[in-house]
Amino acid sequence: MRIVVLAGGIGGARFLRGLKQAAPDAEITVIGNTGDDIHLFGLKVCPDLDTVMYTLGGGINEEQGWGRADESFTVKEELAAYGVGPEWFGLGDRDFATHIVRTQMLGAGYPLSAVTEALCARWQPGVRLLPMSDDRVETHVAIEVDGESRAVHFQEYWVKLRASVDAQAVVPVGAEGAKPAPGVLEAVAEADVILFPPSNPVVSIGTILAVPGIREAIADAGVPVVGLSPIVGDAPVRGMADKVLAAVGVEATAAAVAQHYGSGLLDGWLVDTVDAGTVADVEAAGIRCRAVPLMMTDLEATVAMAREALTLAEEVRG
Amino acid sequence: MRIVVLAGGIGGARFLRGLKQAAPDAEITVIGNTGDDIHLFGLKVCPDLDTVMYTLGGGINEEQGWGRADESFTVKEELAAYGVGPEWFGLGDRDFATHIVRTQMLGAGYPLSAVTEALCARWQPGVRLLPMSDDRVETHVAIEVDGESRAVHFQEYWVKLRASVDAQAVVPVGAEGAKPAPGVLEAVAEADVILFPPSNPVVSIGTILAVPGIREAIADAGVPVVGLSPIVGDAPVRGMADKVLAAVGVEATAAAVAQHYGSGLLDGWLVDTVDAGTVADVEAAGIRCRAVPLMMTDLEATVAMAREALTLAEEVRG
Repeated sequence: MRIVVLAGGIGGARFLRGLKQAAPDAEITVIGNTGDDIHLFGLKVCPDLDTVMYTLGGGINEEQGWGRADESFTVKEELAAYGVGPEWFGLGDRDFATHIVRTQMLGAGYPLSAVTEALCARWQPGVRLLPMSDDRVETHVAIEVDGESRAVHFQEYWVKLRASVDAQAVVPVGAEGAKPAPGVLEAVAEADVILFPPSNPVVSIGTILAVPGIREAIADAGVPVVGLSPIVGDAPVRGMADKVLAAVGVEATAAAVAQHYGSGLLDGWLVDTVDAGTVADVEAAGIRCRAVPLMMTDLEATVAMAREALTLAEEVRG
Repeated sequence: MRIVVLAGGIGGARFLRGLKQAAPDAEITVIGNTGDDIHLFGLKVCPDLDTVMYTLGGGINEEQGWGRADESFTVKEELAAYGVGPEWFGLGDRDFATHIVRTQMLGAGYPLSAVTEALCARWQPGVRLLPMSDDRVETHVAIEVDGESRAVHFQEYWVKLRASVDAQAVVPVGAEGAKPAPGVLEAVAEADVILFPPSNPVVSIGTILAVPGIREAIADAGVPVVGLSPIVGDAPVRGMADKVLAAVGVEATAAAVAQHYGSGLLDGWLVDTVDAGTVADVEAAGIRCRAVPLMMTDLEATVAMAREALTLAEEVRG
């Protein structure tokens, strides 16, 4: 079985860990969000790709969900001693090595997809990890500061400001002209199942879908497309997805997110048992829906979620 | 008093520490060798400039004479885990930050001289540190491997091969077309004294003198030019200067090095007391010479050496 998964960072990575165990014989291709990539200290940092790679490769800091386990921050402290920031972005020494290798390879002319493959040769994530695009796409968030509109990099909004101000708009700058990375459209075309993990529907999965050709390929693949709600009750399971959902005019509910993806794209949708009451609404919108536990409290619970997603996919296939 | 010092790495840096104490009111300008600069991991590394900066700024690893005190090697270990080398060059985590800042500034368009000034704003070395040139000059060493001639970067010869094979030639690639960095010729023209510390006469001071205009400016400055022999007895005080002296056809003796610089450039020369017998030879070559202790065993001994150099300069001035 060939499974294609669109993934952001922590939520996507954790779901993938469950999926690998739920479908040990499947060939899993991950299309990773690169809209939150950022250049820091002259280095190219790809937070979502690295979170997937570290999580599946056994190098992740389990507690925080991003960055390397057993990490130190000597380089960052030294940079600060030179007055060089930003200090709000937590790059550790181990993590720096990844960005140094990536930047050096990009500088030598390799596309990001080839670089990602080279990095994964060390981590052996057990999935094929593809960036959504080799082209630069950078998610910017429009906010109001002292009555004036201003656009900031997604990381500045998310990490520095901690989404403490309203997002007026979310713009994947460069997406319009970006091409899917080599292998992306082929993987979608050859997939048996396509999954949207409980990643952020706007700045993670939404950004991937904003690369021309990807949304169309998924809609036209003719295979079950099943998603898992990142909203449980009336709040995101983690992160601040409600903030960016508001910016695109979508309510922070499991049903509203399903309708935001739409029945043209999505065939099946899993909501948490606490949202069982919305199943009928989602089905009325033409999307098959089931209510199951959706909290990734441990690996076992995550494996069960992945199984439910695959089961719903088979139901959809009929 | 304005003193200009041409300096390589460890020997130059240690001598400068003594000079600062011997002449606390002097304005000292250091023209640093950049011929041993190397690009590693996509980063610009300037070993000699950094050794001077760290030594005078209190950040040096005192025992080894290069690199940072209290250093760790996490980034390097991680790079090795990606299969990315070279492993023979010892870049520590603290040191990496310097190269990251430098590379970022160079990438933003600042010349090396401006970058060096910015880095020194943190270290406050108490001297004005100028790279010999903002242009790329890279010392290559011709060696014979399995009967075939091959050129390697100076660092590969020095650090990886530990000068274990004969150097057939030493070539400062790019020197011909390099221009002295801003401030270099002005500092020489305005100097009251010019000193050559016991740095390597071929790959450190020789490389600086290979930048068109610098040798001429020193010869024409009309002020005392005094050097200290890096050879004591028949061996270099540290390092493997004899190897590269042989490549340029110069005997590894204090007198031969003085004659290599020549009386057109050098006015005074200090040899160690064990080489007192060569004073007459040096003077016969038209270079005033004194025999004094030249081992930089501690700061006090180094301060005394710097005082002797300044005393000899005053004698020359007459």
